Parts: sequence; structure tokens; C-alpha cells
Amino acid sequence: MNLFDEDMPRSPTENGNMGQEPRIDRRTWLTGAASLVGATAAGLLAPAWLPAEEGESARPTHVPGRSPSPYGVRAQGETIERLTLATHSLTPHQSLHGIITPSALHFERHHNGVPLINPDRHRLLIHGMVGRPLMFSMNDLVRFPSVTRTLFIECSGNSGHEWKGPAGKTVQDTHGLMSTSEWTGVPLATVLSESGVKPEALWVLAEGSDAAAMTRSLPLAEVLKNALLCYAQNGEALRPEQGYPLRLVIPGWEGNTCIKWLRRMKLGTAPFMTHEETSRYTDLMPDGTARQFTFVMEAKSVITSPSGGQRIEPGFVEIRGLAWSGRGAVRAVDISTDGGRIWHPAQLQEPVLPHCHTRFRFGWRWNGEEVLLQSRCTDETDYVQPTRAALVAARGVNSSYHYNAIQTWKVDQAGQVRNVQV
Amino acid sequence: MNLFDEDMPRSPTENGNMGQEPRIDRRTWLTGAASLVGATAAGLLAPAWLPAEEGESARPTHVPGRSPSPYGVRAQGETIERLTLATHSLTPHQSLHGIITPSALHFERHHNGVPLINPDRHRLLIHGMVGRPLMFSMNDLVRFPSVTRTLFIECSGNSGHEWKGPAGKTVQDTHGLMSTSEWTGVPLATVLSESGVKPEALWVLAEGSDAAAMTRSLPLAEVLKNALLCYAQNGEALRPEQGYPLRLVIPGWEGNTCIKWLRRMKLGTAPFMTHEETSRYTDLMPDGTARQFTFVMEAKSVITSPSGGQRIEPGFVEIRGLAWSGRGAVRAVDISTDGGRIWHPAQLQEPVLPHCHTRFRFGWRWNGEEVLLQSRCTDETDYVQPTRAALVAARGVNSSYHYNAIQTWKVDQAGQVRNVQV
Repeated sequence: MNLFDEDMPRSPTENGNMGQEPRIDRRTWLTGAASLVGATAAGLLAPAWLPAEEGESARPTHVPGRSPSPYGVRAQGETIERLTLATHSLTPHQSLHGIITPSALHFERHHNGVPLINPDRHRLLIHGMVGRPLMFSMNDLVRFPSVTRTLFIECSGNSGHEWKGPAGKTVQDTHGLMSTSEWTGVPLATVLSESGVKPEALWVLAEGSDAAAMTRSLPLAEVLKNALLCYAQNGEALRPEQGYPLRLVIPGWEGNTCIKWLRRMKLGTAPFMTHEETSRYTDLMPDGTARQFTFVMEAKSVITSPSGGQRIEPGFVEIRGLAWSGRGAVRAVDISTDGGRIWHPAQLQEPVLPHCHTRFRFGWRWNGEEVLLQSRCTDETDYVQPTRAALVAARGVNSSYHYNAIQTWKVDQAGQVRNVQV
Repeated sequence: MNLFDEDMPRSPTENGNMGQEPRIDRRTWLTGAASLVGATAAGLLAPAWLPAEEGESARPTHVPGRSPSPYGVRAQGETIERLTLATHSLTPHQSLHGIITPSALHFERHHNGVPLINPDRHRLLIHGMVGRPLMFSMNDLVRFPSVTRTLFIECSGNSGHEWKGPAGKTVQDTHGLMSTSEWTGVPLATVLSESGVKPEALWVLAEGSDAAAMTRSLPLAEVLKNALLCYAQNGEALRPEQGYPLRLVIPGWEGNTCIKWLRRMKLGTAPFMTHEETSRYTDLMPDGTARQFTFVMEAKSVITSPSGGQRIEPGFVEIRGLAWSGRGAVRAVDISTDGGRIWHPAQLQEPVLPHCHTRFRFGWRWNGEEVLLQSRCTDETDYVQPTRAALVAARGVNSSYHYNAIQTWKVDQAGQVRNVQV
């Protein structure tokens, strides 16, 4: 029974009324007498057929649709892409929802491209200071007891261009070197225990099977806590650019330690001092010394909407963004619309998971005046995301990595959003 | 610095020893003296280059890999697909990990195909017993306060062929009409409140914009609790076959109530008695009467590995599967390897979310004898998933829908897994 046999009339939308309060709570929202967003009063519109200029697609109820398909693709017209550069690509957070990054849009960072690996031939070697060296096929690894965790991976260079000034135009530019996936694999501790780690082993080298043979040294006690050897991402096999068929994932640590295309782990007494640990991935401090082995990604957050390059209309605006901490779970996110003078608590989307992006939201009404939007993350250790001034005072501006200052988006009177630093 | 400049030697794997215990706890696993899975002692192998028959791809460290890409695709050779039929397709759970179903593999069920809809022209009309009828564009809806939830959607016909006997060969056949996604949208309650629902309104009709103009009547008080008008799935816009650009998602309710391509909601005092409510989606009982408006999907579970069509080897086997309940969260999953006489608690992967697939795991050692594998879900209401005998005693075998009996997989002495009923 089709009770209503007409297609929807087409109409322009109109914007609702504006107000002064910076915040709208759910009760106000739900009892609001006025339509804060641009719903159109249906009774004011004459019922009308959709114009035919788009052909039959304008009348989807009039033509049978297409059949089921073996592996789905996006809707025509949905064309969000990763911004690609020579050695990396960026996740377009300005266009995404929730916390799961579609695997097709997970950021990439490679040191010599994405290798083509036959999983049937791929092996993981465990050797060095172990009771017995062992080599595992992918079939071996998949048989081990498995674990699934939803985790962010953030490149230590995420927001790195912001050290020198407001560089990125969009949140993809400024914060696109991070993504979140549901990862499945076997705990590293389980696999290492098969080889019998010798008591004097304190570090482990992880090596990838790419043309860079990417290697990092990792403190063993730390990675035994919760590192995973992952073979699945968001339900299916890892994507090639995420390390197919095997990736080391260390919750909360900088992305380069999450070695992709993992083929070897060697146990030893000291760091192996690979070139990633001398020429790269250190943090140059104001006094000329360099911090080394700064694995943990400190607490950080960013407003993804409204964000650079977007334009807002006066009236209700839900401020949306992501917060995360390499030290565990997010405890709170606060929002400022005045460049950091007054802070309001944002709502956190449950479940709030450790070492995972947390989506935050804050109902706000924009009155058309110039504003400076900021978000500030506090993690479960009570660490508070620093202002840019505090970060620079401690670290100078010669680092490339571990920039986690509060991001400021300026909204001008036209509603245009731009990256600024205050 | 590349400390280890040789490719991994290639070797056959060997299987570990067998035992008698049906279960292996983590402590046993971690301190086990023998390699339970087929790791190869690396020292026994002569270092060897990989054979060159696959060309340079066999030596991924020797050739620069490909560059970053705007929208990633799966690895070559990873070819899991939905099994497609005329009106639906099935999720291949035997090959998936974790709980997120990749959007490309989310099951489909359409009543007249997948419509092609221009989101710029799509409208949602709210009318009937409301203070003022309203029409919303997609831009209007996206501006409302949003919510993200990870939820299963299960077709009421999932496992429906099993009413008459063991029909499906694989878990995709038997349980493929269900999937889990991270859904983002606006609470239905928020949008309806804009129209001012009249006190006498007790039911709401939801209508899709497909060629079937799919319609269902829903009890208003129930759907006001937690139904969402969703525009995003797993981070990006809904896939066309999941209702692009707008889908009603009612946590825990049969999939057909989660109206896709949603274009209209009409408030009224009684069910609208669409043909989906008379000719379909009722449950024929043994006494000839039919249950109607059986919206909630009761607690259920299934072992996805090992499952029908797979073959296992003696030794350690991690039994893996999914459990869920339309009434809320899963409280426990139990595993039997003897057709339901003795039950062992499975491990549940945290976080356990309401109205969401929960991944369970159970470490087991197969001794090569014939076994009957079963899983049994208990939900937070203490409802226990019924045996087939109990389900049939209550409901007969004339239903098409809401089959939630315990699934049995028989493993024969060759390790072959088959669908049986006990």
C-alpha cells in the first residue's frame, strides 16, 4: 500500500532565527519553538513533481533500482578523496563522521612506496636474543588467539607544518596524518613467548618488507603491554598501504613505530640505532639537543567542523571534532569560541575508548560576529593539551614532530573559516 | 640502516602437537613449551632467496613500491565478495574479523532495487498528526545535533531457510543477512519535535523513496527512544544500497523497519497496515495465527570460524564468532563442542555495546575426533538463545522470520565443517 503516491516537492531551504547564547543544550533544543535549522513548512508548498531535467533518476520511485552487487562502491557524486603527495596521503576529516576512518581514506605514509607482497610467501622472523628463532607464515599467525581494538594511528609529523605558522588551509592539511580503524591481530607478547625471550633482551627491532626496509627500535617492556601484530583492518584484510599482510600496531605510539609489511623482529639489549632514530624522528629542542624515542602521541584535539575552508551560516551550528591521547582515554574536551578565554565542556560520544579517536560535539549558536574556535583535550592522566604559546615555550619551533597545540579556526563575519594561530 | 639485507626464506609450515583438553586458557598458551601453531624453527632452514617465479613482487624490498592513492582499494588477491541474489546479498562472515562490516560488504535487501537519488533534491517530509508539517533537505538534517552509534542491522529473514532443515552450506548462507556499521545521524526524536507531535499520535509511518516505496508502521513511543535518521555509515556517506542519502535506523529492530531512502514520516493514531504488515513480516504460528509487529531481533549468536565449508587441522583452534541482541547488550556467550551437553564461557571482546555485534572467542584444541560446535548467547535481560528444538516447539516450522536457534557446525574426522541440526 503506497499511501502517498507523489514525489517530494522541491524547494529552497531557509535559515532559522539567530540568537546570542553561545551554547544550546539538548533540553533547549528539544523544546525550541523555532526551527533552528532550515526546515521548510510543508504546507506552504504546492505539491509538485520534480522537474525532469535529471531524467528518471529524479523520480526514483518510478523506476526499478539496480540489483545487488558483490562489492559495493560509493554513491555517484560522493567523491571525498585523500589528498596525495609523493610520500603520503591525508585523511579528509572535514568530511567524515563518527570515529571509524573508511579504510579507503586512511592516511598513508611510506618511506619507499607501497610494496606488492604475496601473503602466501610472507614470513615473520623472530630472532636475536631468544631461546629459539622462529619463522611464522600468515596462516600461522591467524591461528593464534586474536584481539580486536579500535585505535587511532597518528603520524608524529601530523600538524608538523604548523610549527612555523598557520600552514594548512583545511583540517585535512593540518590534521590529516591520523586515522582510526578497528584492528585485529595477535598480541605481540603471545608470539614472542613462543620464541622464549631471554631475560637480558630489553629492545626489539621491527623491520618492514618495503623497499625502505623501514626499521624502528622499541623498548620491549613497553610494547609487550599491548602491541598487536595485525592482519585485519575494519573487518577485512589490511589494505596494501596499511601494511598488508602484517602490521605492528602499538596503541598510542607514533605511526612510524607501527611497522608496516612487518617481516622481522630482532631482540637485543639496546636500541639498534637505525637511521630512523638518528636522521629522523627526533625532536630538536631550543637548546640544540634532540629528544629521542619520543614514542607516545600526547593528548590532542581538533574541530573538524566548522574547519578551514568551510563556511557557516548564522544560527545553530554543531561544533564537531576529534580528540585522542596516546596515554589512554580522553577525559574531557572543552570548547572556546573566543580564542581560549572561556571554555565550555563538549559532549563526548560513547564509548570513549583508550588510544582511540573520541568524537566530541558542542551545540552552539553563531550570531554572525567574528569568533575564534578552539578545542582542548584533557586525557585520563590529567594532561591538558597545550596552547601554541606554551608548546613553543617548551619546545621552540625547530621540531618537525609531535606538534599537539590547540588549533584555532577563525570565523569571519561572512562565515568563512580560516586557520590562524593565537 | 638495514640490519638484515636478506629476504625471508620460504618454508612449509608444520602443525604442532595435539592434546585432549577442550580448552586452553591464556596462561597455558603463554607458557606452553610446544609451538601450538605451525611456526618453523628458523635455525633449521638454510637462508635462501625467494624463488623468482613471481617476478619482482617476490622481492618487495628490491623495488620501490607504488605511490599514495586518492581512494584505496583492496590488496590484489583479496577477493571476498557478497553472495548476490535477485533481491539481496549476503555478508561473508566466515572471512571477516572484529565487528565492523566493511561498507562494501554490508548485506543488502531491497524490495525493488537500489534507487539512484540526487541528495540535493532529496527531502524528508514530516506530516500527519503534527503541529506543523515540515520538510527537510539533507543540509537541514546534517545541521541538527548528531549522534554516532555502532549497531547491527539484521534482516528478520536472516537464517530463515534453516526453519525447514540445515539449508545453508556456509555462515554467509545461514547468517549473512546481518552486518554492523558505525552509523551517524540525528535522533528521530529531535526532528519530530520540530514538527510538534500531537498527543494522540501513537504510530508513525516511514516510507522509502525506492520503486517499492517501502513502508512500515512503527509504534511512536518505542522509536522515539533511540531511532536515528542516519546519513553516514563507517565515517562516510551511506552507501547507495544502505539507503543513501537517508536511512531510518532503529537499534535492535528487524532490518525492514530501518527504512532506506527515507522520504516521509506520517504520524497517526494506529498502524497504517501497509502490505509489509499483512502479506509479509508476520510470523505464522503452529495454531495458524500470525504474530504481527515482531520488531525486536531476539538474542542470537553464531560461530563464524570454524564454520560451514571450512576445514580445520588438529591442534589449537580459536573458535570465533558473533553474538548480538535486539534487547540490548550481550551478557555472555557459551561454547559447546559436544552438541550442547557441556558449555564453556567464551571471551567477549570489549567494548560490549548494546544492539551491536559482539565478537567472542574461545581457545580450543581439536583432537581430531568428530565434534558438534555450538554457541549460545545470553543477553542483558537474561534471555537465553534457544535450542532448535525449543524454538520449533514454540513457533513450529511455518515461519519465514525470526529464526534465532543455536547453530550447530559438525566437524568430521577429516576436519571438514558442515551445517547440521541437532
